[in-house]
Amino acid sequence: MTLQDILDPQLDASFKGFPQNTAPLRRSAVAAQGWNVLDGDLPLPLAIVKRDAVTHNLSWMQRFATERGVDMAPHGKTTMSPQLFRRQLDAGAWGLTFATVGQVRAGATTGARRCLIANQVLSAADLQGIQSLQQEFAGLRIAFLVDSLAQLALIEAWFSAQPQATPFEVMIEIGVPGGRTGCRTHADALTLAERLHQSSATRLVGIECYEGGGASGKTEPDSAYANALMQRVAAIALACDAAGWFADDEVLITAGGSAIFDLVAEQLKPQLSLPVRGLLRSGCYVTHDHGFYKRMVNAVNQRLGCEDGLHPAIEVWASVQSCPEPGLAILAVGRRDLSYDLDLPTPIAYSPRGGRSIRTAPADWTVSALNDQHAYLRWTDAGSALLQVGDRVALGISHPCTTFDKWRWMPVVDADYGVCDALVTCF
Amino acid sequence: MTLQDILDPQLDASFKGFPQNTAPLRRSAVAAQGWNVLDGDLPLPLAIVKRDAVTHNLSWMQRFATERGVDMAPHGKTTMSPQLFRRQLDAGAWGLTFATVGQVRAGATTGARRCLIANQVLSAADLQGIQSLQQEFAGLRIAFLVDSLAQLALIEAWFSAQPQATPFEVMIEIGVPGGRTGCRTHADALTLAERLHQSSATRLVGIECYEGGGASGKTEPDSAYANALMQRVAAIALACDAAGWFADDEVLITAGGSAIFDLVAEQLKPQLSLPVRGLLRSGCYVTHDHGFYKRMVNAVNQRLGCEDGLHPAIEVWASVQSCPEPGLAILAVGRRDLSYDLDLPTPIAYSPRGGRSIRTAPADWTVSALNDQHAYLRWTDAGSALLQVGDRVALGISHPCTTFDKWRWMPVVDADYGVCDALVTCF
Repeated sequence: MTLQDILDPQLDASFKGFPQNTAPLRRSAVAAQGWNVLDGDLPLPLAIVKRDAVTHNLSWMQRFATERGVDMAPHGKTTMSPQLFRRQLDAGAWGLTFATVGQVRAGATTGARRCLIANQVLSAADLQGIQSLQQEFAGLRIAFLVDSLAQLALIEAWFSAQPQATPFEVMIEIGVPGGRTGCRTHADALTLAERLHQSSATRLVGIECYEGGGASGKTEPDSAYANALMQRVAAIALACDAAGWFADDEVLITAGGSAIFDLVAEQLKPQLSLPVRGLLRSGCYVTHDHGFYKRMVNAVNQRLGCEDGLHPAIEVWASVQSCPEPGLAILAVGRRDLSYDLDLPTPIAYSPRGGRSIRTAPADWTVSALNDQHAYLRWTDAGSALLQVGDRVALGISHPCTTFDKWRWMPVVDADYGVCDALVTCF
Repeated sequence: MTLQDILDPQLDASFKGFPQNTAPLRRSAVAAQGWNVLDGDLPLPLAIVKRDAVTHNLSWMQRFATERGVDMAPHGKTTMSPQLFRRQLDAGAWGLTFATVGQVRAGATTGARRCLIANQVLSAADLQGIQSLQQEFAGLRIAFLVDSLAQLALIEAWFSAQPQATPFEVMIEIGVPGGRTGCRTHADALTLAERLHQSSATRLVGIECYEGGGASGKTEPDSAYANALMQRVAAIALACDAAGWFADDEVLITAGGSAIFDLVAEQLKPQLSLPVRGLLRSGCYVTHDHGFYKRMVNAVNQRLGCEDGLHPAIEVWASVQSCPEPGLAILAVGRRDLSYDLDLPTPIAYSPRGGRSIRTAPADWTVSALNDQHAYLRWTDAGSALLQVGDRVALGISHPCTTFDKWRWMPVVDADYGVCDALVTCF
């Protein structure tokens, strides 16, 4: 797959949300179609990305990192969109983060040459995959996580049978008791670090943690939690530095989801003898949302004294297909089209059929349930039947990752819902 | 997109689960690669489809329908897989069902010429889309659902402005109070039927309902519920027949998910003056599952006295990436890879690393949580640490629809987990 294939692919009517009567066209030709979402030029349901919100978020987050002397390695698994990867790199990102070896391919094809895999890699297929990617993309740097001697043994066994292989760049993951992956204790981390230093299969290039799993949205416990974790990361980095176990002239220290990223960003640069590159891996910031991340980032904004933080950029528009009972409208949109893992979607606006007018959704509208291809929109004041069959409803989502993976393309819209660009995804 | 493009597309390393170091190849060339899932030839996580189970299910369900004098119009939205559409048609299906106009394109490209849309269609984009598809695919028949005069008014407004358009084939949807779409009363349905008969924009070709939303898995309430619904459908069909409102020589009567399909199948052929074609729209039967549908179909099997019912055909294999605490293994698989809407996945088997041996998962293994790219496998007897880093675990899923939509391709395996074929999806 070439750079043009991935940045400017051909779209056609086999893509959900593309008009059935339009000939195939390249992504770069979408803007010239003159489509407007409110004019009904595109079939619903449709997930759209608001251009101005994305531009704001890219620059807001890059500035946030720069002001703290750290770099961005945004998590690409959120969007898996080459067009957004390119925007993130152009905005100043040091590199990109991914969850799997296969995902790295999309980043490398887009032009990223520094990729973190925020996961343990250990299978022969994945270790070989990293070597293959590095042969295919000149200068591609890939560093992944290690958290156990058992994992290292698998890496070494594979490496010793591959005389052509180059050593793997690895970071030790620091985890928390009751949490997910990662070394649970200081001693375990140092035992592993020494072995990684000694191994011919690995080069220890940094220390990693993920604080997002412990975020509550309440500043007091979140600060205590993040501080304790980052102090452990710093102590382990200091010990590895003192022992001379880091393999490079620069040490990577990385953390960061999109929920309490401000609480870790300040602590990504412990004082070592070697220069430190602090890397923030937030992914969801790029489109933000109307649910979980909105709640979490409200607390971030309060801590920062920020009055214009991240803007929600994704809306999923759907038709009212039936109003079968008082207080109930059935929308033609469902689990195939938007997130439902953290919260059900939130009605944010509606547009009566046949026009471009948009009205704010009443506060008593809720989506009470989703089926695969249907949503149940309910309101408590059954007398106020504002919606009719054929009207359009905009839903805000909670958790960008699980909406992006339901679309092969998404139109990018201007402030008037004119389609000014498009992005594709590579899940 | 040609028939070859859709039935025998090219796969490459940008497809999740495809080896990074393998050149692109056509789907039909996959079997010749000699891949075996247990040999680690393909990167994990990986959703696989068991060949023998699918073959069994296709023939079991077709026989079930034939024995009851009804036809299959399997819901294609479950799999959106042209290879499975082809198998369903070849097994004897009358046609295919879809949820959206866009989905019909995949079915028509695969060769289906009779398509039901089990949803209300009403927007200009979708009405135009149906006309475009019918121009593009000679002889393509599409019938969709109508459940309100408001919807009919939108169809008529669009139709009256399109002198070239041909009338739309429609079926009246019968719904239940407290349910989803569909006419709630006999009187509403007949008022609508008369108007559909009178309209130049529509041709009334049948009556539809969906019983799956009311299924509990308990025979007594499910029978009462299905009987009451199907009796309403029959009464409305009789009234429309007596009034001469059906437009064709044959009347379509259709129902059917995959949970209590046996309770509606017997009642799809009410005695009318016109011949009746009963159509069962089950979709999930083709791969079945280890969760919701397994529980539901256990009751079906009991009612049928069937000892060899549907077989679960999907497994999602994942690596153990970390064993960080007693009683906990973290698997490299998550919400990006399998269903989590009806139940979390069920561990069904495991294979120690570096071999082909497979062992049944102990009964105390459960997946307690999923992140986007991680699963938490827990066991209660912390002393029995059977799993080690690098071992592979097979997860059974609950709800095929929401696993298929997470994969662009899936290998088809024989009884020894050798890859003997592949399918792609078109979400």
